Amino acid sequence: MQIGLVGLGRMGGNIVRRLMTKGQHKVVVYDTNSKSVNDLAADGATASASLEELVRKLDAPRTVWVMLPSGKITEDTIATLSKVFESGDTVIDGGNTFWQDDVRRARELKERGIHYVDVGTSGGVWGLERGYCMMIGGESAIVKRLDPIFASLTPGLGDIPRTSGRDSHDQRAEQGYIHAGPNGAGHFVKMVHNGIEYGLMQAYAEGFDILKNAGIDALPPEHRFDLNIADIAEVWRRGSVVSSWLLDLTASALAKNETLENYSGFVEDSGEGRWTVNAAIDEAVPAEVITAALYARFRSRKDHTFAEKILSAMRHGFGGHTEPPAHPDAGQKK
Amino acid sequence: MQIGLVGLGRMGGNIVRRLMTKGQHKVVVYDTNSKSVNDLAADGATASASLEELVRKLDAPRTVWVMLPSGKITEDTIATLSKVFESGDTVIDGGNTFWQDDVRRARELKERGIHYVDVGTSGGVWGLERGYCMMIGGESAIVKRLDPIFASLTPGLGDIPRTSGRDSHDQRAEQGYIHAGPNGAGHFVKMVHNGIEYGLMQAYAEGFDILKNAGIDALPPEHRFDLNIADIAEVWRRGSVVSSWLLDLTASALAKNETLENYSGFVEDSGEGRWTVNAAIDEAVPAEVITAALYARFRSRKDHTFAEKILSAMRHGFGGHTEPPAHPDAGQKK
Amino acid sequence: MQIGLVGLGRMGGNIVRRLMTKGQHKVVVYDTNSKSVNDLAADGATASASLEELVRKLDAPRTVWVMLPSGKITEDTIATLSKVFESGDTVIDGGNTFWQDDVRRARELKERGIHYVDVGTSGGVWGLERGYCMMIGGESAIVKRLDPIFASLTPGLGDIPRTSGRDSHDQRAEQGYIHAGPNGAGHFVKMVHNGIEYGLMQAYAEGFDILKNAGIDALPPEHRFDLNIADIAEVWRRGSVVSSWLLDLTASALAKNETLENYSGFVEDSGEGRWTVNAAIDEAVPAEVITAALYARFRSRKDHTFAEKILSAMRHGFGGHTEPPAHPDAGQKK
Amino acid sequence: MQIGLVGLGRMGGNIVRRLMTKGQHKVVVYDTNSKSVNDLAADGATASASLEELVRKLDAPRTVWVMLPSGKITEDTIATLSKVFESGDTVIDGGNTFWQDDVRRARELKERGIHYVDVGTSGGVWGLERGYCMMIGGESAIVKRLDPIFASLTPGLGDIPRTSGRDSHDQRAEQGYIHAGPNGAGHFVKMVHNGIEYGLMQAYAEGFDILKNAGIDALPPEHRFDLNIADIAEVWRRGSVVSSWLLDLTASALAKNETLENYSGFVEDSGEGRWTVNAAIDEAVPAEVITAALYARFRSRKDHTFAEKILSAMRHGFGGHTEPPAHPDAGQKK
Repeated sequence: MQIGLVGLGRMGGNIVRRLMTKGQHKVVVYDTNSKSVNDLAADGATASASLEELVRKLDAPRTVWVMLPSGKITEDTIATLSKVFESGDTVIDGGNTFWQDDVRRARELKERGIHYVDVGTSGGVWGLERGYCMMIGGESAIVKRLDPIFASLTPGLGDIPRTSGRDSHDQRAEQGYIHAGPNGAGHFVKMVHNGIEYGLMQAYAEGFDILKNAGIDALPPEHRFDLNIADIAEVWRRGSVVSSWLLDLTASALAKNETLENYSGFVEDSGEGRWTVNAAIDEAVPAEVITAALYARFRSRKDHTFAEKILSAMRHGFGGHTEPPAHPDAGQKK
Repeated sequence: MQIGLVGLGRMGGNIVRRLMTKGQHKVVVYDTNSKSVNDLAADGATASASLEELVRKLDAPRTVWVMLPSGKITEDTIATLSKVFESGDTVIDGGNTFWQDDVRRARELKERGIHYVDVGTSGGVWGLERGYCMMIGGESAIVKRLDPIFASLTPGLGDIPRTSGRDSHDQRAEQGYIHAGPNGAGHFVKMVHNGIEYGLMQAYAEGFDILKNAGIDALPPEHRFDLNIADIAEVWRRGSVVSSWLLDLTASALAKNETLENYSGFVEDSGEGRWTVNAAIDEAVPAEVITAALYARFRSRKDHTFAEKILSAMRHGFGGHTEPPAHPDAGQKK
Repeated sequence: MQIGLVGLGRMGGNIVRRLMTKGQHKVVVYDTNSKSVNDLAADGATASASLEELVRKLDAPRTVWVMLPSGKITEDTIATLSKVFESGDTVIDGGNTFWQDDVRRARELKERGIHYVDVGTSGGVWGLERGYCMMIGGESAIVKRLDPIFASLTPGLGDIPRTSGRDSHDQRAEQGYIHAGPNGAGHFVKMVHNGIEYGLMQAYAEGFDILKNAGIDALPPEHRFDLNIADIAEVWRRGSVVSSWLLDLTASALAKNETLENYSGFVEDSGEGRWTVNAAIDEAVPAEVITAALYARFRSRKDHTFAEKILSAMRHGFGGHTEPPAHPDAGQKK
Repeated sequence: MQIGLVGLGRMGGNIVRRLMTKGQHKVVVYDTNSKSVNDLAADGATASASLEELVRKLDAPRTVWVMLPSGKITEDTIATLSKVFESGDTVIDGGNTFWQDDVRRARELKERGIHYVDVGTSGGVWGLERGYCMMIGGESAIVKRLDPIFASLTPGLGDIPRTSGRDSHDQRAEQGYIHAGPNGAGHFVKMVHNGIEYGLMQAYAEGFDILKNAGIDALPPEHRFDLNIADIAEVWRRGSVVSSWLLDLTASALAKNETLENYSGFVEDSGEGRWTVNAAIDEAVPAEVITAALYARFRSRKDHTFAEKILSAMRHGFGGHTEPPAHPDAGQKK
């Protein structure tokens, strides 16, 4: 079918390519970067030089997939689209938008007869080849109408073994996409997905940290080990309970550089981790692991926290007004 | 080659079967449960009615693999073996022994000329079919001599994509086993493996909990979702960043029973989680996620903690000597 | 000076009494519960039968202190007041309002020339006797004008030793109140105060839990202790580093009933703990302890979490399709 | 009564002084630093030039209080004392010894008829003036015999209000000391005391960190506050729920230097925090807050953890083999 695609970065560009390859869809593209537009036009997409032109080149009812960084640029693009759209048209937000913004936008757009679909899209730069795992929020009729698009983007069954007992369930999940619920549900599920990802990553990270420090001088000599971290990551890929795609990535990085000295250790967080914790708090669900993973990233970006200085000041206070580490209990960094 | 196997439970029995299938090894078996012995004898193993008989049926230098629950029964079995063993014989502990016990045992056995090998074995009940991922601690010459055994038990390359850049690394890791280091190193690495597993499991568990509670009454109506947890688990298996074997298991359980009402929620912990945290503390490595995962299991086994009663008592105290929830701040379980 | 007081519950009633005792202020009171109104009228307050009457009985520029549970009732009361107020009048919110609501309200009221002051008030039911610790947000001129009110409510220097080096600082802090900043700052500081309180309480609670369980059967006999928790709480009040008012309350509760069997262990949380964590996340400050304290309360109110059932389901999956605790790794060192 | 004191550092020296002031005890002192010995001799103590001389100057049954850093020096000193001691003599370890070492030592010394008493001593450098809070482990008869010593060291009732309902309890707790139980119990209770202290300190530290960062640029302008941390610490000392001695120390440090720029933020930990977490794990008590407080100190002493580099490597892997922060999901809301 026909679709417009706005935002031709790594994710958006690959989505266009997969749509053209897997589904013979007609894709009209736009990006502020004209090189991205021209590259895709060379591959078969229809170029446009503005949002307005992109909309004009689509037949009603139109569908435009917006694939931009979450926040102001996505908000502005959708606002512009909504002005040139007609009743019955649909905008898809495939980025990492905060789900409560979806709820608000869908309500606002509905007043003008415009449909809204939020798609949480996982797959990263590997999606062109592997396909995208999609979590979709929106009206059932609209999600159904767009099925050819989603079906082209998903990984499909591939060689992943089927889960037994799923014959009575929605078959789309096995293909790699779900209609999660009304607007916001798609990005909500994707948000939790990323929250889990934070926890998984931190679990591996801590484990490798413990392995890495197994030989430090503070330990008794008979209890020290000098372990080969790269080999350990590799062996766990083979038949162990902790095998996963994230472990594959870790093994790959360690095979190249076991010390990872090429990384500073400064770790960004995107909004999803924070929003997941906020959701946990709103629901009164204890989410210790996901939260701890988020906090580890916060801490990684600081030289020292003010909290640590407060600790030092207190220790100074009860240890006797000399410089730290003067606390009589202290000094034993074994 | 020739090997004795003591402990023919789910893990031990399957190890015997895989050894006989994959390597045409001669396996002499013993278990206090004679039915287990007889079943394996029917499949080609050599039965023995006692540890002593098992040892007699092996040629020097002997190798006996002990596959029993960690703790007293393993300790006693190895003590008995060491009495009937001759200098040059080898005992393998393939269970989940605390690695510091390995260090001690190896030192004690060495005085009598007996070799010791600790093997952390992952694979669970799936190992017969998939093979076992093994982390091995011990003397290099001994581990090398036993290579045919380990090579028969591993999953091998299978259809798991190779990690690029590993040509210069130890090739055994790609087959599914490593010689991690001296005695204790095998179980140390397996311990950390299980610690990571705790963290991974808890990350998924929290995420599904947040999804499950996304529709509770305490939330504003426009922010409630009634999500299909089983479909979400399934879709994440397809091209998402959080795909893993543990997720496969979760999807399988949810496909059968989405409410999981067949589980009480009482969750055991084995020693490895505790030992991993102890190791982190000894190394001064912050391991928030693994520790939180352990504590979640502790908490799952209690109706209420004394800590919670202390909290209530304090709230009562500053809220004014009436029954809780009399604290003026309280009551808002939104 | 003259002031109106709306909300004559435990906190509000005592504030009225302290104002009349300490400052000879004229207090006009209102509550939907006429008995509370009459009781205070008998003690010297001026009764009113409605918000409108209360406002009529005050001379311009009026000041009305609202002391109601945070949320809808406070919001509605302030909305009503704003309708009968004239430009130049002031409303004080002394409850536990979410600080972002203060920011919004102050902005809205300012359009009508009405001043707003947010007062975070600590002291609980002990405030009548001990005085109230107040954290105030609002315009400097207004906070200054209301100084006689705040000065009457504070504990004052009392017998608490002065902090050296404070001569160049704002002297109000030593009396027990501060002008923290613009609107919202008062409740923001009070919110963090309560967040800290959560952490402090949980630290004591965990410590007493460890003491309480020091004699369990799972420990080696030579490492078990049967400790007198009530005596320990008492002794720590005397010269130890952990002495505090919260410890005093704990010692008092344990002196009455060492088992605390009169408490269920179900622990409420008020909004401040949640908001503090949200603030930490917005600021990218790792707040592990305060968050863990909040989550412990969430967990205390559940029989079992869905997360725990997910864990059981996974363990079942890799442990072999029998009922838990069939996982072969489960050593159940309870 | 008569007592020997070994180890005349800040704590030991002050204990000698308080014993001589409060109780007219005869104190024989020894330290490897002869200046410390001479200073105390000038104040009335009996000097000795060796452990052996100290023992000779005491009448049987002798009592020697060892007040040295925990670990090898304490172990060696007690070993030496045990050689020159006679049956019936008593050694007191007043330092921060690991309680399981007490259990072992008491058992070994008992074989030679020597008594052992472990005393967890809180009070820091303030103890000379305020008195020491003591938690004592040992045989009842011995603890009773030494009561004059303990009674002289305690703070006593002072002006701290009595806890109601304690008339039927052990009156020593109100004086500031308890006989906690058999050997090890004294240091066990002191260990948990310090574990709680870690949690309390971290709760305050996090709260002040949130206050400190309340004005960062990442926040919306209308939600930023520039707070006076020193005034806030002071005001909380006055009638608030979080008042405590640790808060007094914090207020004092902030009054001197609000930025605490004189502290690096590198925070030591002594053994007690680690041992408390180990005890929690042995007892299966979830101790999230105390553990998080310990981990915050671990993290404070590192530039970056290996865990953080692992996270970066994974993000690099799924974000597409360019340099971080290239991960397409990374919204970098710093």
